[in-house]
Amino acid sequence: MKATLLYGAGDVRVEEVPDPVIQEPTDAIVRVVRTCICGSDLHPYHNKSPEAVGRQIGHEFLGVVEETGAAVTGLRRGDLVVSSFSYQDNTCDFCREGLQTSCRVGGFFSAAQAEFVRVPQASGTLVALPGVGEDSPLLPSLLTLADVYGTGYHAARTGRVGPGSTVTVIGDGAVGLLAVLSARALGAERIILMGRHRARTDLGREFGATDVVAERGEEGVAAVRELTHGDGTHAVLEAVGYLEAYEQALGVVRPGGVISRVGVPQYAQGPVGRALFGGNVTLTGGPAPVRNYIDALLPGVLDGTVEPGRVFDRVVSLPEVPDGYRAMDRREALKVLVRP
Amino acid sequence: MKATLLYGAGDVRVEEVPDPVIQEPTDAIVRVVRTCICGSDLHPYHNKSPEAVGRQIGHEFLGVVEETGAAVTGLRRGDLVVSSFSYQDNTCDFCREGLQTSCRVGGFFSAAQAEFVRVPQASGTLVALPGVGEDSPLLPSLLTLADVYGTGYHAARTGRVGPGSTVTVIGDGAVGLLAVLSARALGAERIILMGRHRARTDLGREFGATDVVAERGEEGVAAVRELTHGDGTHAVLEAVGYLEAYEQALGVVRPGGVISRVGVPQYAQGPVGRALFGGNVTLTGGPAPVRNYIDALLPGVLDGTVEPGRVFDRVVSLPEVPDGYRAMDRREALKVLVRP
Repeated sequence: MKATLLYGAGDVRVEEVPDPVIQEPTDAIVRVVRTCICGSDLHPYHNKSPEAVGRQIGHEFLGVVEETGAAVTGLRRGDLVVSSFSYQDNTCDFCREGLQTSCRVGGFFSAAQAEFVRVPQASGTLVALPGVGEDSPLLPSLLTLADVYGTGYHAARTGRVGPGSTVTVIGDGAVGLLAVLSARALGAERIILMGRHRARTDLGREFGATDVVAERGEEGVAAVRELTHGDGTHAVLEAVGYLEAYEQALGVVRPGGVISRVGVPQYAQGPVGRALFGGNVTLTGGPAPVRNYIDALLPGVLDGTVEPGRVFDRVVSLPEVPDGYRAMDRREALKVLVRP
Repeated sequence: MKATLLYGAGDVRVEEVPDPVIQEPTDAIVRVVRTCICGSDLHPYHNKSPEAVGRQIGHEFLGVVEETGAAVTGLRRGDLVVSSFSYQDNTCDFCREGLQTSCRVGGFFSAAQAEFVRVPQASGTLVALPGVGEDSPLLPSLLTLADVYGTGYHAARTGRVGPGSTVTVIGDGAVGLLAVLSARALGAERIILMGRHRARTDLGREFGATDVVAERGEEGVAAVRELTHGDGTHAVLEAVGYLEAYEQALGVVRPGGVISRVGVPQYAQGPVGRALFGGNVTLTGGPAPVRNYIDALLPGVLDGTVEPGRVFDRVVSLPEVPDGYRAMDRREALKVLVRP
């Protein structure tokens, strides 16, 4: 099959690799109908040391079940399914607590930008989409359930966003915009989106942002403080992952508030002493257990209440995936959908 | 009046200073019946640069109202009252949210190891103790409501301790021991107390600790992991404030769990990236809004259900306060009660 391989920073190739096969009785093989490129894929795209052998990449997909292992239940060949970016049995204690990203037999996909994907723990990982066809216009929005929508929602949930909350969202990428959408759905009264890309922040306004702050760093912090009578906001949803974004979050959070990070931190050390302590600020977030949210978020996608798939602004074929990486890297595209 | 003054590291003196007077109509003057020395007083006792003029110290007290400003309501001369270590109006938005330590007109006491204290925002700060006499055996336990009991309770509450929780408490000082007592009261199933002082950890067992780990650092982390089948505990209540204690907390927290810090951090930078993120660990805590908890905790003290005053293991007069500091510094005393 064709698959996307990363050979090193800036070096993405689409090549022939062996088709995946069932390895465990809990596995399934899915033929990919839609996959996409994630902001987090850009980190290795920027940093990876060159290697002679490429490594498959990609973690978001929906597709059709081609084959199931002997222990797989609840799924049939031919089912259209969406996957979470993590795999999990969805039955262990962590899964039952809603923390599927810490499943005792779980892990993360890393080979989804391809024609086929082997899915470990298929019964706990794949969610069937009955009544949805392979040509449904809903596919882009359904695909966001694999990661970015659930991740934005995780930020808002762990950020304790509720009716009357004031919220700052840091980052106008797909996750930031869907954090805006989620905060609005959870009843936030005011949503300040910090981002500099007009087309993106315009979509953010359509998703529910009440204010946009284009400045960053100290200027950005001052602008949010001015909008909030000096207080900052109850919740800060940090969807970037750089230290500067975390420091910005510290600057705009209200005493007693919550900073929820869903951008993978690209730093180990940072301000963690009195910067958080003095105001009783809570720091939370992490890899989103999106499997926990799919059941709750799916109906709104199916009935068109929300259209998270609007974050996709470019579509490529599998051989064009390297162009897709370049477009996202240059910020010419917000998020790239792939039709294998 | 006599008051305790800190002149520099290790240099505490009891001297005559002017009696405090009403400065604002919201003030009251309280004659101190009991005060005490706090673990957090030891930080300036270790670090303060020598100065020609001493600075008053102390933030925990109960006593009798001597005088009230014109705007003070709900209090009368002669009332026996306990104070929170912060003062606050208890009516602003932060106070109504239960975050009295961020009150818009609030602050912190710093002159309570004395014969009299001026209390700003007296109506929102002092809680009357009707039916309690100046010689009541309950005074030590009532005095813990000023700080250490409410602070231990804050750790357990913000640590989301509830029925079935597993909890690690780091630190066997008064706050750590009262975090144990609070975690037990909130229904924790297992409470692992990390501390090295046998007399203190024995009291911790009486307060509800199910296990004691005397090791620190990596050995301590390994011991807690062994007790929890490798998982760590749902809540970690960090009542020390040094970076090593925070790092220990990171080592023993379960994925999806909460680290709540109530020891004032003696560090600015530390591990804050993937160390927290990967397991969706929440970091919370801060200066305890103990005023928010007094109403809830008072009945159990009055009826003897709990005896938080057992953390006091030495009593001194005001002139003996310097001996009290030395005893706590050398860990000869857990917590020193002062009868002016």
